[in-house]
Amino acid sequence: MLLLHLVRGRGRVRAISTKASLKISPFPHTFTLSLSSHTHSPMATEESLRKSLADKQSAVESQGNAVRALKASSAPKSQIDAAIETLNALKLEKSSLERSLHSILAGGGDTREAFRQSVVNTLERRLFYIPSFKIYRGVAGLFDYGPPGCAVKSNVLAFWRQHFVLEENMLEVDCPCVTPEVVLKASGHVDKFTDLMVKDEKTGTCYRADHLLKDFCNEKLQRDLTLSSDKAAELKHVLATLDDLSGEELGAKIKEYEITAPDTKNPLSDPYPFNLMFQTSIGPSGLSPGFMRPETAQGIFVNFKDLYYYNGNKLPFAAAQIGQAFRNEISPRQGLLRVREFTLAEIEHFVDPEDKSHPKYPEVADLEFLMFPREEQMTGQSAKKTCLGDAVSKGIVNNQTLGYFIGRVYLFLTRLGIDKERLRFRQHLANEMAHYAADCWDAEIECSYGWIECVGIADRSAYDLRAHTDKSGVPLVAAEKFSEPKEVEKLVITPIKKELGLAFKGNQRMVVEALEAMHEKEALDMKAALESKGELEFKVCTLDKTVTIKKNMVTIQKEKKKEHQRVFTPSVIEPSFGIGRIIYCLFEHTFYMRPSKAGDEQLNVFRFPSLVAPIKCTVFPLVQNQKYEEVAKLISKSLTAAGISQKIDITGTSIGKRYARTDELGVPFAITVDSTSSVTIRERDSKDQVRVDVEKAASVVKEVTEGQRTWEDVWSTFPHHSSTAADE
Amino acid sequence: MLLLHLVRGRGRVRAISTKASLKISPFPHTFTLSLSSHTHSPMATEESLRKSLADKQSAVESQGNAVRALKASSAPKSQIDAAIETLNALKLEKSSLERSLHSILAGGGDTREAFRQSVVNTLERRLFYIPSFKIYRGVAGLFDYGPPGCAVKSNVLAFWRQHFVLEENMLEVDCPCVTPEVVLKASGHVDKFTDLMVKDEKTGTCYRADHLLKDFCNEKLQRDLTLSSDKAAELKHVLATLDDLSGEELGAKIKEYEITAPDTKNPLSDPYPFNLMFQTSIGPSGLSPGFMRPETAQGIFVNFKDLYYYNGNKLPFAAAQIGQAFRNEISPRQGLLRVREFTLAEIEHFVDPEDKSHPKYPEVADLEFLMFPREEQMTGQSAKKTCLGDAVSKGIVNNQTLGYFIGRVYLFLTRLGIDKERLRFRQHLANEMAHYAADCWDAEIECSYGWIECVGIADRSAYDLRAHTDKSGVPLVAAEKFSEPKEVEKLVITPIKKELGLAFKGNQRMVVEALEAMHEKEALDMKAALESKGELEFKVCTLDKTVTIKKNMVTIQKEKKKEHQRVFTPSVIEPSFGIGRIIYCLFEHTFYMRPSKAGDEQLNVFRFPSLVAPIKCTVFPLVQNQKYEEVAKLISKSLTAAGISQKIDITGTSIGKRYARTDELGVPFAITVDSTSSVTIRERDSKDQVRVDVEKAASVVKEVTEGQRTWEDVWSTFPHHSSTAADE
Repeated sequence: MLLLHLVRGRGRVRAISTKASLKISPFPHTFTLSLSSHTHSPMATEESLRKSLADKQSAVESQGNAVRALKASSAPKSQIDAAIETLNALKLEKSSLERSLHSILAGGGDTREAFRQSVVNTLERRLFYIPSFKIYRGVAGLFDYGPPGCAVKSNVLAFWRQHFVLEENMLEVDCPCVTPEVVLKASGHVDKFTDLMVKDEKTGTCYRADHLLKDFCNEKLQRDLTLSSDKAAELKHVLATLDDLSGEELGAKIKEYEITAPDTKNPLSDPYPFNLMFQTSIGPSGLSPGFMRPETAQGIFVNFKDLYYYNGNKLPFAAAQIGQAFRNEISPRQGLLRVREFTLAEIEHFVDPEDKSHPKYPEVADLEFLMFPREEQMTGQSAKKTCLGDAVSKGIVNNQTLGYFIGRVYLFLTRLGIDKERLRFRQHLANEMAHYAADCWDAEIECSYGWIECVGIADRSAYDLRAHTDKSGVPLVAAEKFSEPKEVEKLVITPIKKELGLAFKGNQRMVVEALEAMHEKEALDMKAALESKGELEFKVCTLDKTVTIKKNMVTIQKEKKKEHQRVFTPSVIEPSFGIGRIIYCLFEHTFYMRPSKAGDEQLNVFRFPSLVAPIKCTVFPLVQNQKYEEVAKLISKSLTAAGISQKIDITGTSIGKRYARTDELGVPFAITVDSTSSVTIRERDSKDQVRVDVEKAASVVKEVTEGQRTWEDVWSTFPHHSSTAADE
Repeated sequence: MLLLHLVRGRGRVRAISTKASLKISPFPHTFTLSLSSHTHSPMATEESLRKSLADKQSAVESQGNAVRALKASSAPKSQIDAAIETLNALKLEKSSLERSLHSILAGGGDTREAFRQSVVNTLERRLFYIPSFKIYRGVAGLFDYGPPGCAVKSNVLAFWRQHFVLEENMLEVDCPCVTPEVVLKASGHVDKFTDLMVKDEKTGTCYRADHLLKDFCNEKLQRDLTLSSDKAAELKHVLATLDDLSGEELGAKIKEYEITAPDTKNPLSDPYPFNLMFQTSIGPSGLSPGFMRPETAQGIFVNFKDLYYYNGNKLPFAAAQIGQAFRNEISPRQGLLRVREFTLAEIEHFVDPEDKSHPKYPEVADLEFLMFPREEQMTGQSAKKTCLGDAVSKGIVNNQTLGYFIGRVYLFLTRLGIDKERLRFRQHLANEMAHYAADCWDAEIECSYGWIECVGIADRSAYDLRAHTDKSGVPLVAAEKFSEPKEVEKLVITPIKKELGLAFKGNQRMVVEALEAMHEKEALDMKAALESKGELEFKVCTLDKTVTIKKNMVTIQKEKKKEHQRVFTPSVIEPSFGIGRIIYCLFEHTFYMRPSKAGDEQLNVFRFPSLVAPIKCTVFPLVQNQKYEEVAKLISKSLTAAGISQKIDITGTSIGKRYARTDELGVPFAITVDSTSSVTIRERDSKDQVRVDVEKAASVVKEVTEGQRTWEDVWSTFPHHSSTAADE
């Protein structure tokens, strides 16, 4: 199961206060390839195959016994031969069944694996990324972006700034990574940002408990063809509910299945929680613990008051932040998808909880794309092309602002070059969501690892601002001023902290919060019960238990007041982008192979849109020639002056090889200098070439890379150039 | 004394291996305002004043005694009154002398302080920056950039990418902040990236030892007017040599001056080194120590091999990186200048040590700006306007490539808006530089804190690549292929490690390095001495002592070889930019105040060039009016579509107030909608306004902010609009 930094870490931390058991991940269902119930695994076929295989295995065994018996009884050769022939036929049938089962279990995995290998080889060879500190044998989960990867990343971030910050007039901030403990205590990360870990009892090597159990089940299901269909169903159930298992339950399963340390086969410890934050110490005293932030959002929340003021004390407004976040994975896997340090881009859109409309919502309402609402997931359907406006008006998406951001995220991702058909918006299931969350959707992108959440878009209600208000004592609230004072009747719940403190000690805060969070009806019921019986049982979700509330512990009464303003904690709608994951999926979606002109090799191409291409244009003299070189340098210089990243290649390599090299970097255009008056411009994917005057070349490339002009337009404007044998 | 992250940390770490004593900072002289010998402090006047004051003090005392004696002897009243009059006159003269001395000692400090306060107030009020985690009472040395600050920063970085990475075709990389110990062990940071610290012996509060001594000396010099001029000279000497003091020497001075803990007056511990890196642990085992990188450069060095390959195995080439760096200051001071987390932008330009010419050098050779070579500093002169080409050709700047980068840095800083007159390039003194460095210059910017290094430009020779080659065993070298094999005679120095190990144990490596680093002449002398005498005394700088080398410890001989290529460790020239410091200095250089039209208040303005202005344009309807609002929204939308950051303000506030608000954010242009057909465009600094058609407004602003057109040109093209009383 693929567990994701971004949403999972946060979902867990923020969801945890409602749940008694530690939730490892909110996504139990989606990523186990053909093993998941949501991906239409051919269950019937698999089950019947397992059954036939078991039958065939018995048949083989009994026929084997028969042959041995015949031999022992010195039966006639012809009779023995016939029996052997039957045995061989049965064996053949069995291995055919095995092959069918294998292929079902692999579920296209081999092809996917091979495709991924091609992409990753190209990415590593061309230094899109590099395992960090390679000369020192690297560190798991840390990667460098090499030159083309770094350029793609900076293009993606620049477009993010244009598409979100600039177009929405967001307030961008830039906060430090080093964060004092108190902030992450308030947010819940200090207590709950954990994974369950087991240790090799002899060597001390650490493993993620759920990973070991998952690997065991998958291995068993895929390799053990003798598995009964009952046992297979059991293992599948474990996989599906893996993320709901408590530490004790995980430990029990590990014991039951006799799972040992993968490398040494030593026994394993019981699972225990490991906090995933990198810890450090601020200042020289050693008395101020700090952490490297696990997300950028907290930096925005703690600044709410100043940002609200900066915005003229008006709602709604959005703040945004791009920056590094850290997660000290127990054992990082899956290359660029699960790393220990990554770039997040987060938006916190603050809004009046009573008005979640959005003025620009009509601009996205007509968009259609794959949506995967809760209902469809529960009933085993798949994602369907849906009109966003319909989903909002039917109440499937909770509110306009959430819908607006879903639409904007869709536009952002597809403009980067993410394939629409491999992008879906999946709604969180009720059990994945925190109690306070109004609604939550993940933009999931399909790649060779399965469907990967790359953006989480959550309506987190007032949770985060309240948490920091409570911890800091600074009210993070907004106010709506009335044009004239209003007389209001309010139900006032006043927990008597002294009494609660005496009764509940360390749990006092949770009880107070639960009391204050009561809805009107609940509070009135409590008032009635306290008045009649003097006490009542009260469920405190965050403690996962029921406590006895006595009459002296809380007062509840209706009061009439004249109010000049309504003071409230804003809701926050949070689109949160895992930039590295988006980039990795983009690499897979834009990668393809095509035969060389001679047909003797497969050439790699990244079909990056100009927007994200690491280099927009290459400039080649066709042959080594001083005059051509001068022209090439001139063009290269004007491209740079126009802010178009370019690369000049004056090596004597054949032009075909030079094209192939730049196709592999995803460079969309190549200018080839084959005369001093005009040059050719080649488009990467069509390999079409036009002939353009030297003076115009740079500006044509600028227009077409900056989107002021399409290649089709260029193609219909300029004379075509047909490539000669030397060209390709 | 101002000690700087950037260059100091690195200078120290990298310089340290040559020096026996721990050097705290390479910049003893420049930052102590009027106390520094380099800033022409009016020594003569100060000294004579101190002397006159001491004389006057004695006169006051003896006259006081005289008065008392007269009183005791019951002298006539008239006589006593006359003596008192004399005494008062003497006291008046004394306090006048005190005022003069005070004012000399402050050296304009009060004005500077007041100016800084105005800038900082504006910056904080308008959220250019915010003390991080303010609602939790903050953390010293951590700051957030609020919305306008963040926009300025992202503009500065975008321009840095255009000016350096794009224009020089540099290979930009992006490496993690989390760094394993081995890398920083190789670079020297684990052992040497330290400051000397003392602890309050009772409370455990930590202080920087040099800060306490510095504060004591400054305080004494500035406040104690009874100080003898001898004592004053002594304290000044301490200040000037502060950075050369060892831990023991610092401790001795602290004892001698009886310096105690500032807050409690408790006794202090002896000074001891504190490592300034934030330490953490990678992975769950607790066995892999890691640090938050103190600079970005190491990520480039460890990737040298891959980057050289990416560049077609050709030199020279430059790699660049922008990213966060960390420094766990003992007690951060001076706001944005000395922080615990900061953004660095670093370039490592790799070059053949035998050819440090630069093809683009002629483009900068004619630049003239303030340079402050070593020689001028030693002879007490000040920085002079110098032609860069002259400095290079005279050998003052070591080589063309270094000179080229000095020129490019000058262009970068001045285009951002740094005042040429408050920018100088200061060469490191011989004792500030590491033994391996060929030359080093700092771009220093003058602000209210004095001259601040903001960029260090160093020719670090082969040091860093060699350090990682040694530690990792992976040769980080380049090769020049010969067209045909060359017969070369080489002097081969082969230290016999076994013998050296026996003789020098833990010091073996330093001895080996020193032997290998010998010049030809030195080696031949050693060979001769060993052959004649069997041993000789040999100075090992890194050990700061002389060792005895015996004949069996090293072989030195000339060998003839046929070589097909020359393999060598490239030199690296490193321009390293402290982005936060540059931005802070930019704030000070662009800030000014001017009276409001009514003359009743001072208004603040940042005269940011459009390039760095956080918002390029504001759009106002002159009065609240639906038609004007619609026009304003239309213009605002076209500006955004054109990628021009803008802010629309439809509040009913007076237009003058709205202008003042945006001037304070440094917004260069304001469009005011006062009709539906045409609008006015106002330039911030001149307050001049032109009238432009509605349809053209956005494109005129785009052209003038992107530098395709000057304001002068706009001013001469469009009709002028004279502001009415309502406007300003």
